[in-house]
Amino acid sequence: MTGKFHLEEMLLKDYDDSEDRDGISGARLAKRLGELSKIGLTEDKGSKRPGFSLEEQEAKELVKSWMREAGLEVRQDGAGNVFGRLAGKDDSLPAVLSGSHVDSVPNGGHFDGPLGVLSALEVAEAWKEAGFQPNKPYEVVIFSDEEGSRFHGGFNGSEAMMGEIDIEEKKKQSDSEGRSFTEVVKDVGLSPESFLEAKRNLEEIDMFVEVHIEQGKRLEKENLPCGIVTGIAGPSFLELTFTGKAGHAGNTPMNDRQDPLVAASEFIFQVNQLPGKISDSAVATVGKMHVDPNGVNVIPGKVAVFVDIRDIAESTRDTLLSQVEGLANSISGKHGIELESEEKMRITPVPIGEEVQHQLEQAVESNGIRPYRLPSGAGHDAMIIGTKLPIAMLFVKSKDGVSHNPAEWSDLNDCVKTVHVLKTFLEGKVKEA
Amino acid sequence: MTGKFHLEEMLLKDYDDSEDRDGISGARLAKRLGELSKIGLTEDKGSKRPGFSLEEQEAKELVKSWMREAGLEVRQDGAGNVFGRLAGKDDSLPAVLSGSHVDSVPNGGHFDGPLGVLSALEVAEAWKEAGFQPNKPYEVVIFSDEEGSRFHGGFNGSEAMMGEIDIEEKKKQSDSEGRSFTEVVKDVGLSPESFLEAKRNLEEIDMFVEVHIEQGKRLEKENLPCGIVTGIAGPSFLELTFTGKAGHAGNTPMNDRQDPLVAASEFIFQVNQLPGKISDSAVATVGKMHVDPNGVNVIPGKVAVFVDIRDIAESTRDTLLSQVEGLANSISGKHGIELESEEKMRITPVPIGEEVQHQLEQAVESNGIRPYRLPSGAGHDAMIIGTKLPIAMLFVKSKDGVSHNPAEWSDLNDCVKTVHVLKTFLEGKVKEA
Repeated sequence: MTGKFHLEEMLLKDYDDSEDRDGISGARLAKRLGELSKIGLTEDKGSKRPGFSLEEQEAKELVKSWMREAGLEVRQDGAGNVFGRLAGKDDSLPAVLSGSHVDSVPNGGHFDGPLGVLSALEVAEAWKEAGFQPNKPYEVVIFSDEEGSRFHGGFNGSEAMMGEIDIEEKKKQSDSEGRSFTEVVKDVGLSPESFLEAKRNLEEIDMFVEVHIEQGKRLEKENLPCGIVTGIAGPSFLELTFTGKAGHAGNTPMNDRQDPLVAASEFIFQVNQLPGKISDSAVATVGKMHVDPNGVNVIPGKVAVFVDIRDIAESTRDTLLSQVEGLANSISGKHGIELESEEKMRITPVPIGEEVQHQLEQAVESNGIRPYRLPSGAGHDAMIIGTKLPIAMLFVKSKDGVSHNPAEWSDLNDCVKTVHVLKTFLEGKVKEA
Repeated sequence: MTGKFHLEEMLLKDYDDSEDRDGISGARLAKRLGELSKIGLTEDKGSKRPGFSLEEQEAKELVKSWMREAGLEVRQDGAGNVFGRLAGKDDSLPAVLSGSHVDSVPNGGHFDGPLGVLSALEVAEAWKEAGFQPNKPYEVVIFSDEEGSRFHGGFNGSEAMMGEIDIEEKKKQSDSEGRSFTEVVKDVGLSPESFLEAKRNLEEIDMFVEVHIEQGKRLEKENLPCGIVTGIAGPSFLELTFTGKAGHAGNTPMNDRQDPLVAASEFIFQVNQLPGKISDSAVATVGKMHVDPNGVNVIPGKVAVFVDIRDIAESTRDTLLSQVEGLANSISGKHGIELESEEKMRITPVPIGEEVQHQLEQAVESNGIRPYRLPSGAGHDAMIIGTKLPIAMLFVKSKDGVSHNPAEWSDLNDCVKTVHVLKTFLEGKVKEA
């Protein structure tokens, strides 16, 4: 029982069709988001299209048919990535790519991914209607398995295109049903070997532009339809273990305690104050901790604290990381508590070039929107591509900042306004010599 | 496979028998502790004698036989409490009671309880050998089910004697095997009705004296065999729920967070500093907490913190309690975090009279031991009795402060020295007019 769910109707309910201009159609965008939402619809009216599932492939096939209607030449590579190409006047020039993904987390929303793919396609539709042919080739892209909800780690499609996928590692992985990566990708006609063939000559690519929902509340607070992404924060996860001495809460005097939770608490409180001293985009979060043995009347013996540290520049992220470690050391030392520190993950942040941000700013302004810059705290395919090629990203306002959840929502007016900005920006790009 | 376990041998290994004087025998005490340790011995060489089990009853029967050997008149009441009575010269005077319990937690040690019973019995043995008859009657006591490891809440025997057991509430309870209180106590010849008959006329009782292991490390630090208990701390358990706003750790700027874990952490850190300002015996501990949803990259939405607050005087305990609540309020207010506070338990602390402490001090000194006073953080049968009758308590040094664990240990020299102190103190008491 999924009940009635009409994403298209819900989107159009508050839509002001004065946004339908220059070949861009809110009705078409809503219809296509609605069609995609039916593939893998969950009981909670969310989306379940894991990477390399039949649902993800069905969504790709549907988008491929729309690509062909828009006059694009469609191909799928050995990683399942889909490219819908519009030839350039000089087709030997490097192509401008735009798109995102159509896979989802197990009970996700209907905007994270699809909005980026359909926004890029909407620009191609507009150009077709206007009979516009770009100087450079233009490609609408669907990357495979961005979310990584099936195997460990996402971005498999974009990594394969960049020639950076570790296929030997992937071959060792199994999904929650115990099926190997090799078995799973075979269901959709792929093989570990075909992933290696997906590597593109990077000289063929001029840049990658991605429209994505913000998954945060900055744009909602600013009351803006879209914003210019300044960079993609690379997270570092730190596991800190504070070890003291367990004891009876009644029989151990205050001055004879080595309570690791008191030390960990001072640390968590002070960590919160570090990022603001480093940059506006830096964040540090303790979201997870374990207290052992976790009994009301027992002084804990051990406390594990997980710290998520991010910034969009590697230098500031690493400064924050070392300050967090230094803080943990000095506080545990002061309390006579033993400290173990382990870095569980470290991804390089990808800043976005100032020139690209400035060009996006002009595109935003020329569409009558106040330009606003913001960092991306979450990872995206653009993060993988941005380590070697120029990238640009536009964020669309997210209702209440909710994402990876059936309640994920973006207003159609905001989506269409962003497509106009994307179109303006892309026209500047594809006209460049 | 319990392997070989010879508690008696282990106790006697380092025993200096110069302590064997005035009719008190370390060998007898070690032998009896050893005999009791065999009843309900666990694989870990711990003790399993839950309240109202056949093992607890078997231990009582064994002690009863020793009571009779010591010339005491034995009776068991309707709550299973055992009294071994030595008539006074004036047997109409109120009796001096001394003892403890023989039940244990599921995998406990061999001293918590039995040492108090056998110390009281050792004094009767010494008096028998010396042909000493007290003015007042003297009773060695075993209280039933002190630990409460079977049903909710312990102290069932002492509560029944004091006429304070809530038998209707007990009748509603079941143990982990689903057997009702009524069924379980029937196994050892008791009934809910018989518990009501266990109530004694309190005018028959002069005072209650309990020897118990410290279950803390103060005496070990002071290198003293025993110490004088100043009072029994009444715990108050507070559950504080800090509610903020969950969010993505990457996409929520530091200045737009309502992170309940940051507030809870500041609170936990500061709580640790409150008891020292109130009294030397006051303690406040956060041993247990729950972070929700407890994900590395998710700002928590809710954090529950449990605070265990104790002191031996009600006024200081309640001052501490209100300061803890005030602190939680002011910190959550400062952070814009919603706070809910619920008192889960509140037991009245039982201070021990200054005159009794002074008499114990004289008994300690006359046995060549430096007097040292310390609070009891844990509850004991003396706490139940002390709300209406005078009580005294002596603590025996615990190795590493470990208790409720097979590793629980007290040196036999310390135990016997404490019996000498108990004897001196009791002789003063039973001679009083």
